[in-house]
Amino acid sequence: MLIARFTAGENPRYGVLDEESDELVVLKDDPIYGDLSTTGERVKVDDVRLLSPVIPRSKVIGIGRNYAAHAAEMGNEVPDEPVVFLKPNTSVIGPGDPIVLPPYSHEVHHEAELAVVISRMCKYVPVEKADDVIFGYTAANDVTARDKQRSDVQWTRAKAFDTSCPLGPYLAVDVDVSDVAVRARVDGELRQDGRTGQLVRSVPELIAYVSSIFTLLPGDVILTGTPAGVGPIDVGQRVEVEVEGIGTLSNPVVRRD
Amino acid sequence: MLIARFTAGENPRYGVLDEESDELVVLKDDPIYGDLSTTGERVKVDDVRLLSPVIPRSKVIGIGRNYAAHAAEMGNEVPDEPVVFLKPNTSVIGPGDPIVLPPYSHEVHHEAELAVVISRMCKYVPVEKADDVIFGYTAANDVTARDKQRSDVQWTRAKAFDTSCPLGPYLAVDVDVSDVAVRARVDGELRQDGRTGQLVRSVPELIAYVSSIFTLLPGDVILTGTPAGVGPIDVGQRVEVEVEGIGTLSNPVVRRD
Repeated sequence: MLIARFTAGENPRYGVLDEESDELVVLKDDPIYGDLSTTGERVKVDDVRLLSPVIPRSKVIGIGRNYAAHAAEMGNEVPDEPVVFLKPNTSVIGPGDPIVLPPYSHEVHHEAELAVVISRMCKYVPVEKADDVIFGYTAANDVTARDKQRSDVQWTRAKAFDTSCPLGPYLAVDVDVSDVAVRARVDGELRQDGRTGQLVRSVPELIAYVSSIFTLLPGDVILTGTPAGVGPIDVGQRVEVEVEGIGTLSNPVVRRD
Repeated sequence: MLIARFTAGENPRYGVLDEESDELVVLKDDPIYGDLSTTGERVKVDDVRLLSPVIPRSKVIGIGRNYAAHAAEMGNEVPDEPVVFLKPNTSVIGPGDPIVLPPYSHEVHHEAELAVVISRMCKYVPVEKADDVIFGYTAANDVTARDKQRSDVQWTRAKAFDTSCPLGPYLAVDVDVSDVAVRARVDGELRQDGRTGQLVRSVPELIAYVSSIFTLLPGDVILTGTPAGVGPIDVGQRVEVEVEGIGTLSNPVVRRD
């Protein structure tokens, strides 16, 4: 099942995608906090603007070097423990929203990723219970100012700037993501083509690890790392992240004058 | 003026401290979003529990190496640009709440700091306009797992864990913090004794810098760095952070079994 957050000009609402009719069955509430009861209304996907399926109340948690081939292309070893970093909710944008290149960077990269959305408040989640705290999955672009990632002590300027976390287009629930394709295309050209089966640490292992550091809240997002093939994006290009079973997240790239 | 967030068992409320009577004049709304109109009620400070004066909707922004003597004691140079890191809202606790040492660390340090609380949504704030986006100031303890700060690539495990961001006791508005004392005591023993006049980058410079990375939201908190004298805290101790004009933030240290 695919869930969208959308607007037709009014406050954001939620809907379940009916793939046959390309319509959204409108939900009464935010499904992370409520249930899936519907209002009875249907709207055409083409008639609304899809938004990021979630805006975290607390945090987006990033994981570095979680695909061996990507660690290698960056000249890094796979670390003994996951590299964890934070992106604030102010970095999140939705499908179609522009990625605004930060003025302090001249080398901004796409990073296609599977994102996990948390369903409930939790801490110290054992690996075998991790599925109980997952609401669903979406596609993410962990947009990274590679030059500042190299030069700064911390990755905050590199990975936490406004628009550095496109999410969407849908939140997929009840799907098996243990071995799905994760791809990035720039202006239609395939740049990244990995599979979640190549994750160094699985989604349950990541949830166990990060929930040993902080309490996870409903709507918190965990980015699971990016496969090999990262590379630059520039003004006027369009970058697409596709996660098999979830859809394609597409964002244009701009720079403010 | 000093503003408290407090509870007497019910939902959190806000109050202005009347220092003569040691009472809180209860406010109708969260003063960051509303105004300072009062309900007419007064409560004794001793009869309520003070809470963190703010829980950020978005982020706590930390600044590293912003006092030259502290950078030197850590063996670091003062960096050319501020070192910026993030602490999530799940790390925030209030006065009297226990600092829970994380199980993965055996060397947790206190870091006494002046904290700035943002009043309004803003981006690209010029230095000379920074005062316009400051709601007030509070005291902070940027609790740090020093061993993990050394060993991890990123400071997330070291500085973003639950209870790593005590804030309080009051939010001070309309005060001059350009040269106030910032002190830490452990079980009454003075460990840090700096002054904000020693800040490498001033509060307006920090606001200009971080607002060039991300949009700041009302209630976002900027920690301004810690003076020299950081050191370990352990189970059973009490750590106090005093910022002149704001008060003393006191937290016991515990470890979960």
